[in-house]
Amino acid sequence: MNLVRIGLAGFGNIGSSVFENLKRNASLIESRSGLNLAITAIAEKDIRRKRRVALPKSLHVPNLEALIQRSDIVIELMGGCGAAAELALGALRAGKPVVTANKAMLAVRGREIFSASALHQTPIFFEASVAGGIPVLRAIRESLMVNRFSHIYGIVNGTCNYILTQMAERGVAFADALKEAQELGYAEPDPTFDIEGFDSAHKATVLATLAYNRCVDFKQVYVEGITRISAEDMRCARQLGYAIKLLAIVRRVDDREVEVRVHPTLIPQHNRLVSIRGVTNAVSIRGHVVGDLEFSGPGAGGNATSSAVIGDLIEAARYHLSRRGCNQPPFNAIIHPDGPRVKKMGDVVSRFYLRLAVEDSPGVLAQISSLLGKAKIGIASVIQTEARAGKTVPLILMTHEARNLSMQNALKKISRLKCVKAKPVTFRVETFEN
Amino acid sequence: MNLVRIGLAGFGNIGSSVFENLKRNASLIESRSGLNLAITAIAEKDIRRKRRVALPKSLHVPNLEALIQRSDIVIELMGGCGAAAELALGALRAGKPVVTANKAMLAVRGREIFSASALHQTPIFFEASVAGGIPVLRAIRESLMVNRFSHIYGIVNGTCNYILTQMAERGVAFADALKEAQELGYAEPDPTFDIEGFDSAHKATVLATLAYNRCVDFKQVYVEGITRISAEDMRCARQLGYAIKLLAIVRRVDDREVEVRVHPTLIPQHNRLVSIRGVTNAVSIRGHVVGDLEFSGPGAGGNATSSAVIGDLIEAARYHLSRRGCNQPPFNAIIHPDGPRVKKMGDVVSRFYLRLAVEDSPGVLAQISSLLGKAKIGIASVIQTEARAGKTVPLILMTHEARNLSMQNALKKISRLKCVKAKPVTFRVETFEN
Repeated sequence: MNLVRIGLAGFGNIGSSVFENLKRNASLIESRSGLNLAITAIAEKDIRRKRRVALPKSLHVPNLEALIQRSDIVIELMGGCGAAAELALGALRAGKPVVTANKAMLAVRGREIFSASALHQTPIFFEASVAGGIPVLRAIRESLMVNRFSHIYGIVNGTCNYILTQMAERGVAFADALKEAQELGYAEPDPTFDIEGFDSAHKATVLATLAYNRCVDFKQVYVEGITRISAEDMRCARQLGYAIKLLAIVRRVDDREVEVRVHPTLIPQHNRLVSIRGVTNAVSIRGHVVGDLEFSGPGAGGNATSSAVIGDLIEAARYHLSRRGCNQPPFNAIIHPDGPRVKKMGDVVSRFYLRLAVEDSPGVLAQISSLLGKAKIGIASVIQTEARAGKTVPLILMTHEARNLSMQNALKKISRLKCVKAKPVTFRVETFEN
Repeated sequence: MNLVRIGLAGFGNIGSSVFENLKRNASLIESRSGLNLAITAIAEKDIRRKRRVALPKSLHVPNLEALIQRSDIVIELMGGCGAAAELALGALRAGKPVVTANKAMLAVRGREIFSASALHQTPIFFEASVAGGIPVLRAIRESLMVNRFSHIYGIVNGTCNYILTQMAERGVAFADALKEAQELGYAEPDPTFDIEGFDSAHKATVLATLAYNRCVDFKQVYVEGITRISAEDMRCARQLGYAIKLLAIVRRVDDREVEVRVHPTLIPQHNRLVSIRGVTNAVSIRGHVVGDLEFSGPGAGGNATSSAVIGDLIEAARYHLSRRGCNQPPFNAIIHPDGPRVKKMGDVVSRFYLRLAVEDSPGVLAQISSLLGKAKIGIASVIQTEARAGKTVPLILMTHEARNLSMQNALKKISRLKCVKAKPVTFRVETFEN
């Protein structure tokens, strides 16, 4: 029998689900793959904690060295960029394939890890690190290998998409939607990491790295969260024919340059990404040979994530077995440590949605449009809502395409106008026309 | 270098696209996979024919034996269930992995082919056989291996979906939409194979075979095409809150039994499958661990299909190289030749849409509903359009769940009623509630 010894690091929600699902479905996996996947070691710092699934004491190992030593394949589910990365690097050095769900580690320490993987000819698999249960990474890495990816758009953070869905469909304010999400367990007590876009940015970095087969530098990725979106923005966007989603965007410029950015984005109402509701994730891909593909499904949760982890585990196990006493098969996905240039956000061109709080007096629109005009930014449409004498009124503008830097500079001037009563709010627009 | 010799059988639209895309993207493939994939032999009966891509005479081989002999991997793109199957079987016997897009061959001669594959421990890859460029088969076969699939719904025939989209969005009649599809090259001069549902049924058989890892018998698959759908059915369906799509349906009953069927299906308007327009394909999957996933993209065309073929080719090449002088890696997807029971259509339970042409006289609805009542079939809703004195009027009924056999028998009685003026038209309804 093809027995494969697995070391599991981290026995939290995902770790214990992987453990459980491997046990429950062992015969199914064996009948399909001929593999006998046995967890032979578990490393977990907090062994006291009460768990839904009991931690089998007999498998518990005192440290990560012991874990690596006792296993053929290492599953890293500890999270974070410290010990987790040391474990991954140690396993790769020891020639043991690694399976991980840790996007932060891959985004921040990817260069080290992928270099070690290449140097030691030992693969690392990370399907679960982006879009949870949706097998989109293997599709990019394997099935679509002949494709150059002109763009990848992802709704890859369920917390944000849940919040934005509630705001769009029920008109609730951001704070209330966030509170709901926390009560439902969709958002952490400290939600910063999700709502400020960092989680999506880690995933965008992993997507860009895979799509380009080159390590993308996370520090160069533009990140903007959803906290400035108001119920009014949702209404105005709809009135203009758009919805607002938090998108992870990867766009190919050329062989050496790529755009990688995360920000709230206005999307045409008819686009299928708009119908991605609640915590569901979706990734939309354009390949130069295949054309447009879309994948959607559960982006988080112990079960969905362990489905992806176990899928990787089976590939890792095959690799381990096929290697026994014979020349290595070609490495799965070659990632070159030298990354592509990430285009400076200032040079990125987008259309903009612009919300201003202005004094309700004549000539205001003239002043603002002339400032935009000087910056060569054309206005596509305007919403000026009913005037309330004396009060400040919202003024909504949609622009034509402009360099982000030009827009930034124009905004500085605009916010200095006497008639503009609050810091302008602006979001980018994606029309999917190219 | 990892040179892999490829034999290509069939140089039609897809074959020549594969040839072209392999050549154009050779360096991309090599940089990502470390593989040098070289087409070293091409078999094609019709060498006279004018082609978009010229057939390189130097690679042309006189027969399929020569093709197998001169290659490490064989790509079968001839189509049909005769010579194609002989080629696949011959290659597998010779221990050469096979890549094919031929769903008909897999559906009709799957048992032979998968048995040969298992016997000779040589894989056959067929991503391109279902949903063209969408990498859904590898997802089912590999990424989602831990999942039991409770259902798979597919829009897997672009011709039919194009026709139904035109009928739904522009109210055109079936015949006109078909004519358009033919003018646009979306439908064959003889469209029978597509519009009668056979192509979808072949794909349903392949999906069921993979999902179950057991050869499903194509002869047991229920097939019904889209030719009886009228513009009026489209209108009435919408009025009831549904759209009509041709669905390939695979539903797990238990470990031994499965439903595999293809027929026009009413789908709730809000379901995302409704937004799959034109020739686009989509596959929606529920796994017991991962939950609900959806994949959509181009289902046909030389480029989209060759993206899938080349994805398989790379996997086949890895297999070929990893095998050199060492024990076999476990076989990719073990398909057991003994298939599951396919549930008899008569025993399948569905809700029904029923269109009758009835005489406009009192008591008609009473007669019909009493016949349905006797058959224990409840009526969920009724549309009786404005009476035109003397004329026959359409009567639309939506039923609750009923066994297909009970419905069939009730329909016989109903069509015998004097007040019923034409053969009743009925379609099944899928609410996606379980």
